Amino acid sequence: MGDAPNPTSSEMRYDWLADRWVIMAPNRTRRPDDFRRLPPPAVDPSQCPFCAGREAETPPEIAVYPAPQGKGGWQVRVVPNKFPAVQANSDTWPVTGNSAPTWIPRDIDLYQRRELTGGHEVIIESPQHFTSLSQLEQGAVATVFHAFRDRLYHWLEQQRIAYAVVFKNSGLDAGASLAHVHSQLIATDTVPADVLRIDQRMQLFLQTESECVLCRMAASEIEQGVRLVEQTARLVAFCPFASRLPGSITVLPLEHSSGFELADDATIEELALLMYRLIRQLELCYPDAAYNFVIHTAHTGTRNSPAFHWRIEMFPRLTKVAGFEWGSECYINPVLPETAAERLRQAGHIIAEQDDRAHHTSNR
Amino acid sequence: MGDAPNPTSSEMRYDWLADRWVIMAPNRTRRPDDFRRLPPPAVDPSQCPFCAGREAETPPEIAVYPAPQGKGGWQVRVVPNKFPAVQANSDTWPVTGNSAPTWIPRDIDLYQRRELTGGHEVIIESPQHFTSLSQLEQGAVATVFHAFRDRLYHWLEQQRIAYAVVFKNSGLDAGASLAHVHSQLIATDTVPADVLRIDQRMQLFLQTESECVLCRMAASEIEQGVRLVEQTARLVAFCPFASRLPGSITVLPLEHSSGFELADDATIEELALLMYRLIRQLELCYPDAAYNFVIHTAHTGTRNSPAFHWRIEMFPRLTKVAGFEWGSECYINPVLPETAAERLRQAGHIIAEQDDRAHHTSNR
Repeated sequence: MGDAPNPTSSEMRYDWLADRWVIMAPNRTRRPDDFRRLPPPAVDPSQCPFCAGREAETPPEIAVYPAPQGKGGWQVRVVPNKFPAVQANSDTWPVTGNSAPTWIPRDIDLYQRRELTGGHEVIIESPQHFTSLSQLEQGAVATVFHAFRDRLYHWLEQQRIAYAVVFKNSGLDAGASLAHVHSQLIATDTVPADVLRIDQRMQLFLQTESECVLCRMAASEIEQGVRLVEQTARLVAFCPFASRLPGSITVLPLEHSSGFELADDATIEELALLMYRLIRQLELCYPDAAYNFVIHTAHTGTRNSPAFHWRIEMFPRLTKVAGFEWGSECYINPVLPETAAERLRQAGHIIAEQDDRAHHTSNR
Repeated sequence: MGDAPNPTSSEMRYDWLADRWVIMAPNRTRRPDDFRRLPPPAVDPSQCPFCAGREAETPPEIAVYPAPQGKGGWQVRVVPNKFPAVQANSDTWPVTGNSAPTWIPRDIDLYQRRELTGGHEVIIESPQHFTSLSQLEQGAVATVFHAFRDRLYHWLEQQRIAYAVVFKNSGLDAGASLAHVHSQLIATDTVPADVLRIDQRMQLFLQTESECVLCRMAASEIEQGVRLVEQTARLVAFCPFASRLPGSITVLPLEHSSGFELADDATIEELALLMYRLIRQLELCYPDAAYNFVIHTAHTGTRNSPAFHWRIEMFPRLTKVAGFEWGSECYINPVLPETAAERLRQAGHIIAEQDDRAHHTSNR
């Protein structure tokens, strides 16, 4: 547990929560085109449907967060996704009564299908044509995280909804179809099977150890330190021990809490600042890299559970998922989390110095 | 089972073999940049380490398949991967005796790691700087598949090896680091956990139904026809009912067989021709698309098993795996397999007509 990993030979690491092995192969980082990133294609902002002034190009807005006093206009806008992966069915919605939290497939039937209903929203995070949260003012980032909380809260209160997730695709390689800074929310009437599997793992840990697995992991990462990126008053960020993708970061509240949507204002604002710093660190380590983050909050079946702890998973998209991974479902990660964490900490120091210098200059 | 899928609303489909749900969302294909593919960057073939004349730039070759009589030189070359994901460990290799086919993780331990040993080879599929198997002559494609068979056979006979897989990454988006047409083989001393899970599903089907699940699926796909791409004397190709990625194709032998590496020459040659046609069809449907294929053959624990049936999974890389998929492990596929199969069949007709015309012209 405390022994230093060998920086060159391959090893398998076990992701206890996901119950899967990952191959750590630090030798692979010297491949011919490793981490080569094509710059994103230039986009003409005058065609961007998310920019201020072109609000009519999106469906009517669901929620608006106005700009701070005196500025006018909006700061964050929430609209339905024009090309939804899932939507409400007017024939079956709204229905009163219980909805099954998940679908149990029949034992032997190779052709099973079910209707899927729910909602799919876009959170437009700036009226300006920025392409990353790191370009926003810090206060604006906090508004974005308030919007995440509000929208998750809204959906998880709906009668027919069992599961909701907020995620960001930033950059083409991360699956974004538009460059303008935005995130998405998908809510569904069923909980994905893999999410339930992780619930079961969390439940198993609680039953065996009388402790939440992520409470334990947070304490252990702080104690070990080698994968720690940053610890704040209420939160911790670290590179997970057996991450499938290089440069992955997990962010957790230090105090046990199952629902992100139930977090208080102070936590949301501290989180927004931490995420803002982490994104800047990622962008310094891996320029032009696309990235994703996902907010995992409890579904309706694990709300207020002592076993479930909310978390954010963030990962730059440096490598492509290739044939071996698709074939074996076993990922090859060419950057040890210990190495990734060290780079991120160094980037944090550099950014802090730059900010300090900028602050002193502006105060002169 | 026989009912036509709704072409616009979302549905979940159950992948019985993988025991997972997939979201089919055909509405999503109208997104702004769907299926936009950046053309691959121009590569200077004079720098390519896989081209004839630059053999010294790869490690010494493991196997060579000479060009047909009179042509001189090699047609296919197998070399160790210069940047291996896994390799033999001279301290522990060779060891006589049994190696565990898999590693059972300890119940409660968040930090488990194991050494991983094995081999990683590159199969260079042409001396010329081609970038796709579709550019080769048909006889040369057959040689490539003979090489796949030989190398899998070799590795699965090794004392310390439990698992081997051949896979192709074609194009940057599919994880290829070099454009020159090639495939790879990874062999490991342990079987990936997900591969074992699929074994268990195959075993469950056999026990319950007294039939191999893929024998049943092949018969069913031929009977239903809607997802069928092509049937030959010994093989069948279809778009699987619950594929995670759009345009995926499964290829199976009609007669039950667990080991690809045990296939006879006639099957290998028929398969090579079928794969050659399928790749041309994919490339006609999705120009410039990157793609992967994976040869799933029995590991040492399922060799000659009546439950395990070898198969090839091939998939163009049209969409990016985005935040929702990483968060929920539930994939959104914007193209129904029925639609994908129809397009591939149409492409097959167009190619057959072109070939017919070319043949008549050359015979005039």
